[in-house]
Amino acid sequence: MNADEPNGAPLDLAQTRQRIDAIDREIQQLIGERAQWAQLVGKAKGELKAAVDYYRPEREAQVLRMVVDRNSGGLLSNEEMVRLFREIMSACLAQQEPLKIGFLGPEGTFSQQAVLKHFGHSIKGLPLATIDEVFQEVAAGNADFGVVPIENSSEGTVNSSLDLFVTSPLKICGEIELRVHQHLLSRSTRLEDIERVYSHPQSLGQCKAWLRANLPKAERIPVSSNAEAARRARNADDAAAIAGETAAHIYGLKVLGRQIEDRPDNTTRFFVIGRELFPPSGHDKTSLLMSVKDKPGALYELLTPFADQNLSMTKIESRPARTGKWEYVFFVEVEGHVDDARVSAAVAAASARAAEVKVLGSYPVALL
Amino acid sequence: MNADEPNGAPLDLAQTRQRIDAIDREIQQLIGERAQWAQLVGKAKGELKAAVDYYRPEREAQVLRMVVDRNSGGLLSNEEMVRLFREIMSACLAQQEPLKIGFLGPEGTFSQQAVLKHFGHSIKGLPLATIDEVFQEVAAGNADFGVVPIENSSEGTVNSSLDLFVTSPLKICGEIELRVHQHLLSRSTRLEDIERVYSHPQSLGQCKAWLRANLPKAERIPVSSNAEAARRARNADDAAAIAGETAAHIYGLKVLGRQIEDRPDNTTRFFVIGRELFPPSGHDKTSLLMSVKDKPGALYELLTPFADQNLSMTKIESRPARTGKWEYVFFVEVEGHVDDARVSAAVAAASARAAEVKVLGSYPVALL
Repeated sequence: MNADEPNGAPLDLAQTRQRIDAIDREIQQLIGERAQWAQLVGKAKGELKAAVDYYRPEREAQVLRMVVDRNSGGLLSNEEMVRLFREIMSACLAQQEPLKIGFLGPEGTFSQQAVLKHFGHSIKGLPLATIDEVFQEVAAGNADFGVVPIENSSEGTVNSSLDLFVTSPLKICGEIELRVHQHLLSRSTRLEDIERVYSHPQSLGQCKAWLRANLPKAERIPVSSNAEAARRARNADDAAAIAGETAAHIYGLKVLGRQIEDRPDNTTRFFVIGRELFPPSGHDKTSLLMSVKDKPGALYELLTPFADQNLSMTKIESRPARTGKWEYVFFVEVEGHVDDARVSAAVAAASARAAEVKVLGSYPVALL
Repeated sequence: MNADEPNGAPLDLAQTRQRIDAIDREIQQLIGERAQWAQLVGKAKGELKAAVDYYRPEREAQVLRMVVDRNSGGLLSNEEMVRLFREIMSACLAQQEPLKIGFLGPEGTFSQQAVLKHFGHSIKGLPLATIDEVFQEVAAGNADFGVVPIENSSEGTVNSSLDLFVTSPLKICGEIELRVHQHLLSRSTRLEDIERVYSHPQSLGQCKAWLRANLPKAERIPVSSNAEAARRARNADDAAAIAGETAAHIYGLKVLGRQIEDRPDNTTRFFVIGRELFPPSGHDKTSLLMSVKDKPGALYELLTPFADQNLSMTKIESRPARTGKWEYVFFVEVEGHVDDARVSAAVAAASARAAEVKVLGSYPVALL
């Protein structure tokens, strides 16, 4: 607040609104100036082109980290403030042709939520029928970037995304984390009535401890999706579904247990895919795909260079190779950017030992 | 831009980014101040409560009109700037319990888009199965407001919404307009191949002139939804569907004709419904429901008071009364707020002639 604020004596409603109007005028003026400077950034690279030509994920990550750093003690949460700045950046960037972002449709999916969380609303979203199509449309240039789910999704799409990276020339240029909450839904209001629990296998897995503690005797029945689970639970008093809040409303079910996921930070993680690598943002991760020909024990050998460089690994996953060329493929994530000396040294050392090491991308660590 | 801006000599990228960082710092500071003042508005009404206790649609409309007035000559469009301010207001309002908004689900529908366009993203959306449920949940206080489609929706829900007002005690406290584009979609790439066009009857109606001019011989086949139309068009080279862009992506169809709606301003209109009337915003509309017992010719008589007051009518629609109590029910919209002298005089005069005149609501005219 500024010096005009009364000490103890509150302004009346009209005066308070006048203060807010004055603040809004300043905010609007500043957003206008920001748009002009953003346009200059575009022009600095020559003729002003589409947003994709001057979109810089590493710069956006840096701006948002500054927003969080400045936000301590503020009334708005970091999430809200970051969201507002994402939207301001999104609007400034979209002055020419907005970014086109492909995602697994239809609209209303978690994937779309992830797109809007990351890129703001001043974009053109392209809902696509399969993850494969998201890769294709980005590769063909019909989409500037794509967003694909990569882990812990209740849609069971983890491996299909990972596998596409084996043959795709696309690069990972961002990650997005989205909180996902699970609820126990039923038309009954009594937990002791429940004898069957329907859900997608991944969702059942995400709530295992809760089920063991609260419904030890109930049968767990895996179905194709959480929506299908809710549909089935609607038909019996002794059945329940594990699903999101939306399903409760659509299928008219009551919430018998709220946020029953075992880990309170239950999230779905997405990759942003594009056609090029971007420079470091200062707090990055690198995803690698490493393949060995015939020695299962070779994994340890491949990882040694990263340990030698004291780089912590945030994820490692092995997948059967589909090409027949190699027997084992490993997805590895390490802290740092491939332009960092330690990461590039480790990648070089690993390359000497592997059949192939492919840098899938270096990208800013998800902020919130 | 400010005085530091070089005349003609462009700053380099790093300098430009420093300028943007400085602007962001100021914007963030101001948003923080705004949140504090907004909290004061809540406190001015006593103990700070949920957002619904100090949400004022007429005030929001005034703020956004100021935003548009100030925006002339700016780089960002009115739509973008209004969107940013809606989000800022939404975040400031949601500091305590955010607004709960019921709408016709599932997520991803036009109704949800309308909710987010009007209320911003700092709300709790409740997707509901029917329009009837939206009314019920608002009446019961489980939702603070509801959003229901009212005209020109491709979902064919106009009359069902209107009819619910006959018996509901709820009030209209806002209107939302959402642009809707229709495309001709097919798996064929040649317009001359098309012999059948599937779509929802309302969508066929919205593209009548285009169809007459471009596909005069094609059969028009009404189906239950545009998604169903796209699904059918997928199976034949001589069939096309009229639907939104999303359907093209989901069903893998090509766009043979883009934005083929006859009126370029093809929009779906929604009402915001709540439990109370709000004061005038300065540019309002009033919706009335008038019923007559047995004289069809009575309509003219009912409208005379409005003509006498020189109030222009923006909509009039007659519906069969379902109560059996009256034979005719008319929905009428006039300019102005029911607190305005001319409107209240006309309503009083009409009330003297009608079996019943019910003020459904007075609300700010949709801005964009």
